[in-house]
Amino acid sequence: MPDPVAQTTHALALREGGYASGPVPQMPDSLAPFLEYRKITLPAPGPGQVLIEVIMAPINPSDLFFIQGGYGQPRVQGAAAGFEGVGRVISGNGPQAGALLGKRVSFLGTGSGSWAGHAVSDAALCLPLRDDLRDEDAAALIVNPLTAVALLERVREGRGKGFVLNAAGSQLGRLILGLARDEGLEPIAVLRRDDIADELRALGASAVLNTTAPDFAAQAQAAIRAHKPRTLLDAVGDQATADLFFAMPAGARWISYGRMSDNPPSLTQMGQFIFMDKRIEGFWLSRWLPAASPERRAAVVARVQDRFVSGQWYTRTAARLPLSGTLDSVLAALHSGAGKVMLHP
Amino acid sequence: MPDPVAQTTHALALREGGYASGPVPQMPDSLAPFLEYRKITLPAPGPGQVLIEVIMAPINPSDLFFIQGGYGQPRVQGAAAGFEGVGRVISGNGPQAGALLGKRVSFLGTGSGSWAGHAVSDAALCLPLRDDLRDEDAAALIVNPLTAVALLERVREGRGKGFVLNAAGSQLGRLILGLARDEGLEPIAVLRRDDIADELRALGASAVLNTTAPDFAAQAQAAIRAHKPRTLLDAVGDQATADLFFAMPAGARWISYGRMSDNPPSLTQMGQFIFMDKRIEGFWLSRWLPAASPERRAAVVARVQDRFVSGQWYTRTAARLPLSGTLDSVLAALHSGAGKVMLHP
Repeated sequence: MPDPVAQTTHALALREGGYASGPVPQMPDSLAPFLEYRKITLPAPGPGQVLIEVIMAPINPSDLFFIQGGYGQPRVQGAAAGFEGVGRVISGNGPQAGALLGKRVSFLGTGSGSWAGHAVSDAALCLPLRDDLRDEDAAALIVNPLTAVALLERVREGRGKGFVLNAAGSQLGRLILGLARDEGLEPIAVLRRDDIADELRALGASAVLNTTAPDFAAQAQAAIRAHKPRTLLDAVGDQATADLFFAMPAGARWISYGRMSDNPPSLTQMGQFIFMDKRIEGFWLSRWLPAASPERRAAVVARVQDRFVSGQWYTRTAARLPLSGTLDSVLAALHSGAGKVMLHP
Repeated sequence: MPDPVAQTTHALALREGGYASGPVPQMPDSLAPFLEYRKITLPAPGPGQVLIEVIMAPINPSDLFFIQGGYGQPRVQGAAAGFEGVGRVISGNGPQAGALLGKRVSFLGTGSGSWAGHAVSDAALCLPLRDDLRDEDAAALIVNPLTAVALLERVREGRGKGFVLNAAGSQLGRLILGLARDEGLEPIAVLRRDDIADELRALGASAVLNTTAPDFAAQAQAAIRAHKPRTLLDAVGDQATADLFFAMPAGARWISYGRMSDNPPSLTQMGQFIFMDKRIEGFWLSRWLPAASPERRAAVVARVQDRFVSGQWYTRTAARLPLSGTLDSVLAALHSGAGKVMLHP
């Protein structure tokens, strides 16, 4: 048992600081240039912050962009990586933090990253958990589930029931499909493969399109005619995404929340912005979270936990790996595509 | 003097109906495939419509897209072309129309196009004119001036004083520059030539960039640093436009209102939609006009006339040509780039 006011911890620490000089791929060829397992010094928790003993932390696509320097905030060389996780609060600074003492919480590593034995987080962004929630679901409770809820808010603003969702087989895609079905929406799931089409239909997809199929354009046209989607939730950002957007009806919104493709799309129909009132915009949870009121966040979090405990949502886990294991084994697990890779101290 | 309830008139009529099968260029190689001078039958003015004896009508860039079938509304084969003009109301259907009888008005050819001896228009979209307003200014009083006013509303919504304006040497560009200067805004004018840079600075440009200059990127960076533009008013839609957009600060809005380029831009920095809250959207006067209240429109129109009469705005005219002249002479005048080409019966 480590010292409850641990000044040091072991972590997967960032080898580089700042940003990359150019665009980075979704999946690095190797993790070794970016991460190393080492002892780090933790920042002392400031007012309103807590020290957390980490139980488990996921690797999200945003983490992979971040460690390569291709995410929306700069790296700090030598600091622990990892955006979110689950752990137990072992000390706190201030009354709000004190109220969390001893509790199991989902957290964002706002003071120090989650891929570590201990992490520092803002108490306001720690979510106390129900006992019946699995650690796997708790570890990945913030980034994907809150993004799913917030993105479906945007779909409803867009009017109509239909919407398009690419990278639909991802963990986030599956969360969105289930939630959308339960809200009576009609998701058109877009994939680059056929083998999970039935699985996604069972989860809630009203239609499933395969961008690699020879008749993709015809498939898309039929689905768009049937469901009249006005929102495109995009985690890819390639030409197939742009082509879908330009095939959608007037008033369509392209909401980019991820960039899995390295091939920039071309805007072949600029006139549609003018004559069809179309729009391209972005979504970032880091902007949504501070803008939502504490009451709103609490209501969303209660709903999210309920969905996991009841089995409506499920976090698929490809592997549970120790922080001290080899980076190659982590990369191999990421390539499996079988679900989240979880790290533990 | 023609019959005041003229059933027929002479017009430059559309040779084709509907839309083109693909994208069309800004400037056609020839007008002959699209227009012919001939006698046409006018629709009878419906309730709330007036019959207008046309004095003069401009050729706008939107007219050129329209006659080729590349605009946001379908062509009607055999109908007169021409979106706007100035003329005198010679008959009307209903009380609102009757109140305009005998008046000189700026009008939109909503019932029948303006490139004709007579046109049919909705009385609600006819603007009674001050006697001291020149016919040249009156003929082009709606499309460009109201677009200028509406686009600067969008700039002010975008916060900050700086904005970027391409195709800045166009008639619309010049209107925007003058209005922006008088409102204390800081326009960065973007051009493809150097010879009118001083002229545009005198009109109100805070900075002038030349996209064909070898140091364009450095010019742009310096102007963006100095004026922090958050809005990009775009009539071109090419890669230089996209590059400017991606060089602008967080929160930037790319507002497309024209498509002079035939080379679709590539979105090389998709992450900026997410992390920098950037957005691409469109503007179309045909959506703005019906959405604005009659009081708002009246206030804007009074202001617009005042700017022309006082000399703050001026409609540059390259040529005044008869409708019955050759289409080749019209095309040659359009190529001169010296201002608006005006048609008259």
